[in-house]
Amino acid sequence: MQELPLVKPAHEQEHIDKCTRRLSTIEGQVRGLKRMIEEDANNCVDILTQISSVHEALRSVGKEVMRKYLKTCATNAIKSGSDDVYDELMGVIYKYVK
Amino acid sequence: MQELPLVKPAHEQEHIDKCTRRLSTIEGQVRGLKRMIEEDANNCVDILTQISSVHEALRSVGKEVMRKYLKTCATNAIKSGSDDVYDELMGVIYKYVK
Amino acid sequence: MQELPLVKPAHEQEHIDKCTRRLSTIEGQVRGLKRMIEEDANNCVDILTQISSVHEALRSVGKEVMRKYLKTCATNAIKSGSDDVYDELMGVIYKYVK
Amino acid sequence: MQELPLVKPAHEQEHIDKCTRRLSTIEGQVRGLKRMIEEDANNCVDILTQISSVHEALRSVGKEVMRKYLKTCATNAIKSGSDDVYDELMGVIYKYVK
Repeated sequence: MQELPLVKPAHEQEHIDKCTRRLSTIEGQVRGLKRMIEEDANNCVDILTQISSVHEALRSVGKEVMRKYLKTCATNAIKSGSDDVYDELMGVIYKYVK
Repeated sequence: MQELPLVKPAHEQEHIDKCTRRLSTIEGQVRGLKRMIEEDANNCVDILTQISSVHEALRSVGKEVMRKYLKTCATNAIKSGSDDVYDELMGVIYKYVK
Repeated sequence: MQELPLVKPAHEQEHIDKCTRRLSTIEGQVRGLKRMIEEDANNCVDILTQISSVHEALRSVGKEVMRKYLKTCATNAIKSGSDDVYDELMGVIYKYVK
Repeated sequence: MQELPLVKPAHEQEHIDKCTRRLSTIEGQVRGLKRMIEEDANNCVDILTQISSVHEALRSVGKEVMRKYLKTCATNAIKSGSDDVYDELMGVIYKYVK
């Protein structure tokens, strides 16, 4: 049987678009960083500032994914009432929140 | 007058190569992240793990640049004996060390 | 009318005891730090190591409180199905997780 | 032979006083935290806020000690021109800066 192309629910497509748009921006920032270092590697403080911006942009993608995680995966688990869920939740939060 | 192409000292060229090689790897990781999210945005924990790896790789570039900063900019300043230098040094360290 | 002394449920009393025990340890560590600095303030690296241990101990209290927050406050909210709850949850997590 | 009481140089005594004063404040904050938790352990967000303040206060002591480290230990090493010093310096900075 042929697999049908999946149409994703609107809010999911929105989430995907938001994340990939930001990741494309990050790709551009990383390319910019390479140029900065090639042109003047002694310009340390400006390079560090730019690296900081990339971390910040990446963190915003991470937050978006963490929100999705809480909203779907974690919420289902909490509603199920299982007790192990808090260990998993705490593990994910303390591992990935920066 | 025509500008001559600058030949950089060996250790500086090494620093530049190390940083740009790592940044190219990071570009690849970011493209991989986009694909992961497009293919299955519900795979939250794996996506968060991959985002973490990119932060880690970026941090290693940051450390390389911070070492260069300390070795050149900061060292010159400290040798000069100026007192303001510690304020600047503390500012840079506490702003950029992650 | 006279207020009766409240008897707390066992798991809550356990949580309180765990936190206060750790906080008493932290008080002792902070006093130790004062002595270290008074005795030899040039012993910078050892002092920084001890400060790190206090952060670590404090973080473990924070984790214990965050788990309680997720288990009670947040879980009630998620079960209620309100949509704002994820904004609050994300706010608390990103503000307090270290 | 009897050991004479050491008189510390003014800027060192100032450093010690600053650190111990702040550590006494932190001790008070930690005791306050114990009371908060004993009185109402369900007040999670306020408790997390208070824990955050203690981290912040502790970080300010850490910064003061890091500045001293850079000013004395590290500066001597950099002036000596030894090459290993940057490894040590990077190690201390990346281990203790929060």
